[in-house]
Amino acid sequence: MKKLINDVSNVLTESLDGFAAAHGDIVLLGAEHKFVQRKVLKPGKVALLSGGGSGHEPLHAGFVGHGMLDAACPGQVFTSPTPDQMIAAADAVDTGAGLLFIVKNYEGDVMNFDMAREMSGREIETVITDDDVAVENSLYTTGRRGVAGTLVVEKVVGAAAEQGADLKTLKALGDRVNRATRSMGVALTSCTVPAAGKPTFAIGEDEMEMGVGIHGEPGRRRVALRTANEIAEEMVAAIAGDLGRGGDALLFVNGFGGTPAMELYLMYQAAQAQLEKHGIRAVRSLVGNYVTSLDMAGCSITVTMLDDEMAKGWDAPVHTPALRWGM
Amino acid sequence: MKKLINDVSNVLTESLDGFAAAHGDIVLLGAEHKFVQRKVLKPGKVALLSGGGSGHEPLHAGFVGHGMLDAACPGQVFTSPTPDQMIAAADAVDTGAGLLFIVKNYEGDVMNFDMAREMSGREIETVITDDDVAVENSLYTTGRRGVAGTLVVEKVVGAAAEQGADLKTLKALGDRVNRATRSMGVALTSCTVPAAGKPTFAIGEDEMEMGVGIHGEPGRRRVALRTANEIAEEMVAAIAGDLGRGGDALLFVNGFGGTPAMELYLMYQAAQAQLEKHGIRAVRSLVGNYVTSLDMAGCSITVTMLDDEMAKGWDAPVHTPALRWGM
Repeated sequence: MKKLINDVSNVLTESLDGFAAAHGDIVLLGAEHKFVQRKVLKPGKVALLSGGGSGHEPLHAGFVGHGMLDAACPGQVFTSPTPDQMIAAADAVDTGAGLLFIVKNYEGDVMNFDMAREMSGREIETVITDDDVAVENSLYTTGRRGVAGTLVVEKVVGAAAEQGADLKTLKALGDRVNRATRSMGVALTSCTVPAAGKPTFAIGEDEMEMGVGIHGEPGRRRVALRTANEIAEEMVAAIAGDLGRGGDALLFVNGFGGTPAMELYLMYQAAQAQLEKHGIRAVRSLVGNYVTSLDMAGCSITVTMLDDEMAKGWDAPVHTPALRWGM
Repeated sequence: MKKLINDVSNVLTESLDGFAAAHGDIVLLGAEHKFVQRKVLKPGKVALLSGGGSGHEPLHAGFVGHGMLDAACPGQVFTSPTPDQMIAAADAVDTGAGLLFIVKNYEGDVMNFDMAREMSGREIETVITDDDVAVENSLYTTGRRGVAGTLVVEKVVGAAAEQGADLKTLKALGDRVNRATRSMGVALTSCTVPAAGKPTFAIGEDEMEMGVGIHGEPGRRRVALRTANEIAEEMVAAIAGDLGRGGDALLFVNGFGGTPAMELYLMYQAAQAQLEKHGIRAVRSLVGNYVTSLDMAGCSITVTMLDDEMAKGWDAPVHTPALRWGM
């Protein structure tokens, strides 16, 4: 294993220290590294709280700030954060208008966020994201996995929260964005979890994993390497088939951490061409490493069908470590 | 070789098509993929033009837009662009106030930009960046290599150009930022150039290349893997020793493409601690994949000693595909 680390047991805390130091203008690190919070809270605004296993950076801590999340709880690599982290974060960022939890659909995350909701005694709603069309159930899930589409939910709901929407409205909007969003991924290599010290899965030099999960979980099937156009064709067909309608959309090509920008932009072009065949027009775009799997090579494609409210939420000003525009 | 591509001979053009499609609000692609230009030019502003071999994305095309570059010329992977590309780009973006070329110090780039300057008949000054302290001469250079510090030059000079500074002032500022900037890199793995189909260099499972160049060129020496703190100590000592002074600085931890954000933030923290020992205080930060080497694992550390003018230029609004803030 070749990594820029000191000791496998301190990777998360040292990385969070660096993150907080680099982005001290936007975020604060909670005590005992339990959470990352927005530095300047907005009284009367519903607080958005997310979190999950680490190793997917910049998700979620990179999306804490104006127009997105108020707090994020980082678990150990690919491990759910604990309820006491979420309760501490909720205590830190609730300004009286209640909290919305945004949770990727993995059993550990759902259970722990639910426990935190019950124990906290605060007014909390939860949006569960499950945008991955690759498989119906998976290694760590009942139902579909929540993957890169979570970013879109956090962005659009974050914009509405910033505008003063109430908790019930935000919960409904989050569910609606999630239902309009589908994703699918492909892996060319495995990731390596620091504490494990070796690749999560073995894969041949001429193979790829279609429909891979963001922890390196199995996807639909192991197939021979194909061209970018062929990969985009299969992924977009699965996404568009599941969406079942045409129209204007956000096209988000997400790198898993080990794939260079040059390939991601090539995939963007390939995916855009495929979407057109299904009557879907990419009117907004995002390309880059946003919901990663440590050093895995590969990418995911996410499509969100946009109505006016969602497009406005996507375009609204955002000021976080990893997404910034309009201010 | 595992890459998300169609045909090795079309990687660059297909990737540029995707880039232009994804960022059509900011950039335009020139005819025959010769250059990427800012969509809305600012009449009377000195035009900033850069370029170089591809494979370092988002450098340079990702920095085209308000507050940074007016055009970027992409060569084939790790290959200098040609003078006709630069002349076409200069013709497209010169609004009468002259052009500043920002060129990384590699023999091919310097020669071709110089030829373009002579042939174009326009008023052109050139800033050559050579921020890499690792080696004095290298595989493709006489003198030091220009690496990630080039981003800092483009950002600070771009801000001054946006404010209306004239060509001579910008040339002097660019040289000054370059002199205040030092970088050094480390590679844990090689990159793989698509057309070559195999890793550029061989490296053992327990080795790393200290002082590596952004094309995978040899650095100072091949050593056994060390901890992040030890790596940061050596790199910062080389940088700080060469700068020879303390004070306020920008600390920029740059990923080479294959290293996850988690490790880059860990390195940020390690580098910041080392800088303090040399009396250098990180008052500005940048962490991420900005000047990459395709899929190489590793990172570079760049330090720019800031005076008030440079800090103001760094903070100024920027709106490009890869750097966005303040607007």
